[in-house]
Amino acid sequence: MRTLRWLIAIVLVAATGFVQAQTADPLPSWNDGPAKARIVAFVRAVTDADGKDFVAPPERVAVFDNDGTLWSEQPAYFQLLFALDRVKALAPKHPEWKTKQPFKAALEGDMKTLAASGEKGLLTLVMATHAGMTPEQFRKTVLDWVATARHPRFKRPYTELVFQPMLELLAYLRANGFKTYIVSGGGIEFMRAWAEGVYGVPPEQVVGSSIKTQYVVKNGVPMLIRQPAINFIDDKAGKPVGILQHIGRRPIAAFGNSDGDFQMLQWTTAGGGARFGLLVHHDDAAREYAYDRKSHIGKLVRGLDEGPRLGWTIVSMKNDWKQVYPK
Amino acid sequence: MRTLRWLIAIVLVAATGFVQAQTADPLPSWNDGPAKARIVAFVRAVTDADGKDFVAPPERVAVFDNDGTLWSEQPAYFQLLFALDRVKALAPKHPEWKTKQPFKAALEGDMKTLAASGEKGLLTLVMATHAGMTPEQFRKTVLDWVATARHPRFKRPYTELVFQPMLELLAYLRANGFKTYIVSGGGIEFMRAWAEGVYGVPPEQVVGSSIKTQYVVKNGVPMLIRQPAINFIDDKAGKPVGILQHIGRRPIAAFGNSDGDFQMLQWTTAGGGARFGLLVHHDDAAREYAYDRKSHIGKLVRGLDEGPRLGWTIVSMKNDWKQVYPK
Repeated sequence: MRTLRWLIAIVLVAATGFVQAQTADPLPSWNDGPAKARIVAFVRAVTDADGKDFVAPPERVAVFDNDGTLWSEQPAYFQLLFALDRVKALAPKHPEWKTKQPFKAALEGDMKTLAASGEKGLLTLVMATHAGMTPEQFRKTVLDWVATARHPRFKRPYTELVFQPMLELLAYLRANGFKTYIVSGGGIEFMRAWAEGVYGVPPEQVVGSSIKTQYVVKNGVPMLIRQPAINFIDDKAGKPVGILQHIGRRPIAAFGNSDGDFQMLQWTTAGGGARFGLLVHHDDAAREYAYDRKSHIGKLVRGLDEGPRLGWTIVSMKNDWKQVYPK
Repeated sequence: MRTLRWLIAIVLVAATGFVQAQTADPLPSWNDGPAKARIVAFVRAVTDADGKDFVAPPERVAVFDNDGTLWSEQPAYFQLLFALDRVKALAPKHPEWKTKQPFKAALEGDMKTLAASGEKGLLTLVMATHAGMTPEQFRKTVLDWVATARHPRFKRPYTELVFQPMLELLAYLRANGFKTYIVSGGGIEFMRAWAEGVYGVPPEQVVGSSIKTQYVVKNGVPMLIRQPAINFIDDKAGKPVGILQHIGRRPIAAFGNSDGDFQMLQWTTAGGGARFGLLVHHDDAAREYAYDRKSHIGKLVRGLDEGPRLGWTIVSMKNDWKQVYPK
């Protein structure tokens, strides 16, 4: 009889949990409005087994840009700030950097000269700080930085400058049978170091830009060594290419914030059946940043001009989000 | 009271299933012997939550070569036989192929001239038959071929020439919380077309060689087009590189059959904690094929010479497998 009572208790608890899951707001940091309503309507449509828009769980693939979509990207991409901190940390071993550009500018915090060095200058810094070690060693460097570095304006760890409404969205999609992927122009190993802990996205679901790696056996120990050469740039038209390569399926939902995400949303939402495209519009200078058409980072022009006609949801950070960062 | 009886029934059924799962032989097509015993001992060790070799489920990554490991690869890689069939199917649109090598040899079934054309010749055939379409169109071509083509010796569809003991091994590992991946020199999209149905391995868990793809918008329709250019060769030292790129974790178990898998097994088994490496040795001319050191396909020299010292399990197809193909 005690066993029976115990069984009943389990069933009751399970049933209560089920009802709660059905009624609790899964997106509490989103203000009620069209953006939130469209997200919920899409998820209900593709998970309704009797509906015309039902999608089987294996095909419920959702892809998220990272910089500006899941976490902030101002005043500069956080990975670039990591590279600058690494230049400072490695400087004692490279006395020549004191007089050699773009290292000199990086060491002196001379952002104007650094910006003038252009893509080539930044790439030089990235290669000098991201290559020449194993992925495990690089991962440790990233995690050490994440644990100690602070954002210049918010004075918080960078991994706390993730968007609470997007964390809820990731969890909501996963609770509805979606597999959530990051598809970002950022470095794949840079993101993998912390994405599982912060977003719940495991390494095998992170797609990003990469440098080449080479397999070598040193003193009998096999290892991969990161090379100072570009392997793949996961941005713009590269995003659908990266998605095919890693996932092998066309997503049914895509989330971004800049024109670097345009092709990813375009390819995703052009597929048959129910599709979802969403762009986060940074219009909240008070709580985060306000930038779009003229920004040097996260430029958003085509998305604003063509997105609404393509059925994409444009999220106003200011109006649609109750809260920006986790408390 | 009826509800209670119903609950008891569920618990009893579940308990019975549990006991069965614990006692039924998960590898019935493997003869009892050291190979089978080592597989079972490894799986028990990494899944025993109280043991020193316990591995948390997310790190239970197992990688499988495909050609010669999961299915046969004689008298030639099946994907090459697919390419030759495609040359014949496409020939009416390419009258110039009648006089142009290596197409002429392919059309005439002149395998000697074809072999003499070397890697460059074969690559020409692959590019002519694998590029110039979307991944969806290519997938359909592969599935049509799989449905109709027959192996010259066994007169069965190629997807039936998979190894029954390896199908059981894939299922056994998955039942024990492993994520099973294919890591093959074969074409990634060629395998993805049928790997889920045949092996239970979804597209996102297939790593392979690839040609480049390009994102284009044609008459307003966005699509990816396969390009006649190599993107990545997932063989030998490329296998650990492909694993890092796609999975982002070092596997704890690796399964292969040729020296093309050497580095994958080497990197996998050199990691800390319990590791498992296994090579299928094709020594069964009666039921399948017998080849190793001198074969032009699936050459196995280093694996036989160095594998045992590295703790790898060498499986004799003849002695360790009760059955080769599914009935």
